[in-house]
Amino acid sequence: MASPRFFEAPLAYVLSAIAAKCGAVLADENDSSFLCTDVAALDQAGPQHLTFLDNKKYKDQFSATKAGVAIIHPDMRGLAPKGIKLLLSNTPYKSYALAAQMFYPEEWGKVGIAASAIIHPTAKIGKNVSINDFVVIDAHVEIGDGCWIEPHAYIAKGVVIGASCRIGAHTSLSHATIGNNVRLYTGVRVGQDGFGFAIDPSGYVKVPQLGSVIIGDGVEIGANTTIDRGTTGDTVIGAGTWIDNLVQIAHNVKIGKGCIIAAQVGVAGSVELGNYVALGGQAGVAGHLNIGDQARIAAKSGVTKNVPSREEWMGYPAMPMKRFLRQVVTINKLVEKLKKEK
Amino acid sequence: MASPRFFEAPLAYVLSAIAAKCGAVLADENDSSFLCTDVAALDQAGPQHLTFLDNKKYKDQFSATKAGVAIIHPDMRGLAPKGIKLLLSNTPYKSYALAAQMFYPEEWGKVGIAASAIIHPTAKIGKNVSINDFVVIDAHVEIGDGCWIEPHAYIAKGVVIGASCRIGAHTSLSHATIGNNVRLYTGVRVGQDGFGFAIDPSGYVKVPQLGSVIIGDGVEIGANTTIDRGTTGDTVIGAGTWIDNLVQIAHNVKIGKGCIIAAQVGVAGSVELGNYVALGGQAGVAGHLNIGDQARIAAKSGVTKNVPSREEWMGYPAMPMKRFLRQVVTINKLVEKLKKEK
Amino acid sequence: MASPRFFEAPLAYVLSAIAAKCGAVLADENDSSFLCTDVAALDQAGPQHLTFLDNKKYKDQFSATKAGVAIIHPDMRGLAPKGIKLLLSNTPYKSYALAAQMFYPEEWGKVGIAASAIIHPTAKIGKNVSINDFVVIDAHVEIGDGCWIEPHAYIAKGVVIGASCRIGAHTSLSHATIGNNVRLYTGVRVGQDGFGFAIDPSGYVKVPQLGSVIIGDGVEIGANTTIDRGTTGDTVIGAGTWIDNLVQIAHNVKIGKGCIIAAQVGVAGSVELGNYVALGGQAGVAGHLNIGDQARIAAKSGVTKNVPSREEWMGYPAMPMKRFLRQVVTINKLVEKLKKEK
Repeated sequence: MASPRFFEAPLAYVLSAIAAKCGAVLADENDSSFLCTDVAALDQAGPQHLTFLDNKKYKDQFSATKAGVAIIHPDMRGLAPKGIKLLLSNTPYKSYALAAQMFYPEEWGKVGIAASAIIHPTAKIGKNVSINDFVVIDAHVEIGDGCWIEPHAYIAKGVVIGASCRIGAHTSLSHATIGNNVRLYTGVRVGQDGFGFAIDPSGYVKVPQLGSVIIGDGVEIGANTTIDRGTTGDTVIGAGTWIDNLVQIAHNVKIGKGCIIAAQVGVAGSVELGNYVALGGQAGVAGHLNIGDQARIAAKSGVTKNVPSREEWMGYPAMPMKRFLRQVVTINKLVEKLKKEK
Repeated sequence: MASPRFFEAPLAYVLSAIAAKCGAVLADENDSSFLCTDVAALDQAGPQHLTFLDNKKYKDQFSATKAGVAIIHPDMRGLAPKGIKLLLSNTPYKSYALAAQMFYPEEWGKVGIAASAIIHPTAKIGKNVSINDFVVIDAHVEIGDGCWIEPHAYIAKGVVIGASCRIGAHTSLSHATIGNNVRLYTGVRVGQDGFGFAIDPSGYVKVPQLGSVIIGDGVEIGANTTIDRGTTGDTVIGAGTWIDNLVQIAHNVKIGKGCIIAAQVGVAGSVELGNYVALGGQAGVAGHLNIGDQARIAAKSGVTKNVPSREEWMGYPAMPMKRFLRQVVTINKLVEKLKKEK
Repeated sequence: MASPRFFEAPLAYVLSAIAAKCGAVLADENDSSFLCTDVAALDQAGPQHLTFLDNKKYKDQFSATKAGVAIIHPDMRGLAPKGIKLLLSNTPYKSYALAAQMFYPEEWGKVGIAASAIIHPTAKIGKNVSINDFVVIDAHVEIGDGCWIEPHAYIAKGVVIGASCRIGAHTSLSHATIGNNVRLYTGVRVGQDGFGFAIDPSGYVKVPQLGSVIIGDGVEIGANTTIDRGTTGDTVIGAGTWIDNLVQIAHNVKIGKGCIIAAQVGVAGSVELGNYVALGGQAGVAGHLNIGDQARIAAKSGVTKNVPSREEWMGYPAMPMKRFLRQVVTINKLVEKLKKEK
């Protein structure tokens, strides 16, 4: 039920097609040709809409929903209101995401190159590319097939972009090699000089930043996020990593695969993140540290030491989560004790 | 006394006109035709300038001022230097702001559409609009009367903008409905995808972001701030809310009326702020929380629980201000005690 | 050994020329005509490359390097592998920076004005200037000799820019006077309205922001950083100050010379920083405070009091570093003690 002002009218599908695409099975095979016309939230869905239940917390909304179809975990089947058709999935939210993608495929711009775009004759542009108004593409840039470059993007000399990437409006890109299926949101800055200088009484001396930025396949980078290129060697963002808005990634940072970096995080120079690391919003990691695979850093933490794999840390300075929580409790008790003594 | 390089020469007014517009009364009606030619700070004002005193802290500067006229609270009348003309107001700073607006009306761009702007034929553009160089306006966009769109702004498909709005240079807008008298500063990002995905071992699955952003009348949004659209449903910024630079507002956040959100604040997904909430600089609010009306969160706090109306919280994790301050004192005492024991 | 995709091939120099430029002396005068063709890291350098050792930590890499030449401190001469040529410097990193600048001079754009740039007839443009595609320059702007204005920059009415400045892509500049040799990275916002309003029950009243921004010689400002202009009077960034990405500098802030401000720092209105102050990443300084010369604020600190010159502070609220560290130790002990008592 997306607004028609902003989204194309949703496509329609029979349940068998949805089940096949989203990794679910029909609870009742007789529903296979039922036509679904949209996806919607539990409280907004109508009789031809597909909704989902992912969390028991919403069971009351679920029992009152007017949705024609719902994706649910088999274990929650008993909560279903009478008459609703069910798609059973062990991962209902993922199945919903895949179904929603069917109804609302991402709206790429019209294929073609805007008359106002300025493209250097040495640039290589793939097939079925959409290059919008006022885009500037410098010498020797390579753009893969099926990319969408939004208005006002600036892609500097030599940048390589893989296939099926979306480069947001007002993005600046330089000194970068970008994989396939990468999305840079609006206002992203990639490849600018890192913050590098030699201290000197007569004024800081700029250290030339001679590296680049390498972004793996399937990476997503949020609005106004900044990623500096390496000093020597590269700043690396591993495949499948998601980065939110207003994040700072400094020079020579190496980020593994599948990491999740929430908004306003700052990662200082030469930090290494393993695979599947999660950094909560506004967290900061000091320079040259190592955060192990699958480690999780709570929002707003300030990490000043290496964090071992699979550990969960929090605090400023950050420490293992359990210790942090024990500290909070201890301080609270102490305050209460002193209050009583008065 | 603004620099003529950057500002038009101020207009000039007689005191009666100023008093009428800024909600003040003349201490002496005989001054009503005195001509004022500018506004200026206490220590820079000359005999034809208007200044103000809002805080007793500056009473020495006030007694030495060379200003011809001052706006002051009636209670501070006794502090006035000899010969100065007085405008009496119960809200001197507000009165000064209104007077300053008279002398320096906001400089809107020249009415007209730049030859270099690209406007889709289906877009509806109001009267007396200023659309500057390299602006791109997509299909079905609606722009109200008297708007000023600065250079390089990009307004995507279907966006609706009310009357008398100022859309800053390099701003990207999509999936948004904007009220009247709204100011977006430079580099603002509105309507991009929220940070939404389903976890899956084979790679995160993007959840289509099918909502929009609704911005009320009189909202002000600072430079390089980012506001994501809703996943389903909308991200809402209530009327009269002021947001500073580099703020992150995630998907499905609902912000009430008249809130004040200082620079670099982060508000995570689905948070609800009541009316007249104040968030200090660099504060963060975790997802799905509720901050009650008129609550105040101190700068740099990390809010992890609901905050009741009218309470003032601080800390990481945030707690009621009194408790936080007691904690600070308690820890200090403990440190001192252990130091002495040594 | 920078990638030829992104960098021009390095220039080549004989050692005597390098020594002269970078403030080093040849350990053996017989090496003076040895030709160096590139700079490289210890582990990547080949026989015609110049590398450096700045920290004993890397002595093993140093003893294994295949570099033809190294810059080192005279005291570390003993660590040198056999056959390597040496340039001796008391400041090896600075000398390396200067040498690297010789091999890789900053690549300024081609001199000339792009056909797509829009320049007001009253603007004064210096000699040997590079103005790139879709740049907009308003009335009465002055641009000094040898400047490089990257694509999509917008320079509003009256802005003055000195000689040899680099203005990054997508930068917005207004109400500003900028010295020589200044670099603004991509997406920087300078001169927009500060966050100024008078509180009023019927809605906040905007206080006209009538000042400007003054940026001294040699200042460097990182990507997507925002610097608001003064309310009355100016926001000032002193000569030689370096500011990293995503930093917020509010109205009327005065920053001295040679300060270092790391990424995501926030400096609230009317703060004064002395000379050579260092603010760590994500630190925040509350309004109207004074930070003395050479004071150092640790990353993520929240400063709520004036900080005397040369002191090092940390914490939230920030306090002298020693006291902060003592606090951390004290709390840890207390937690351990209570744990044992259980």
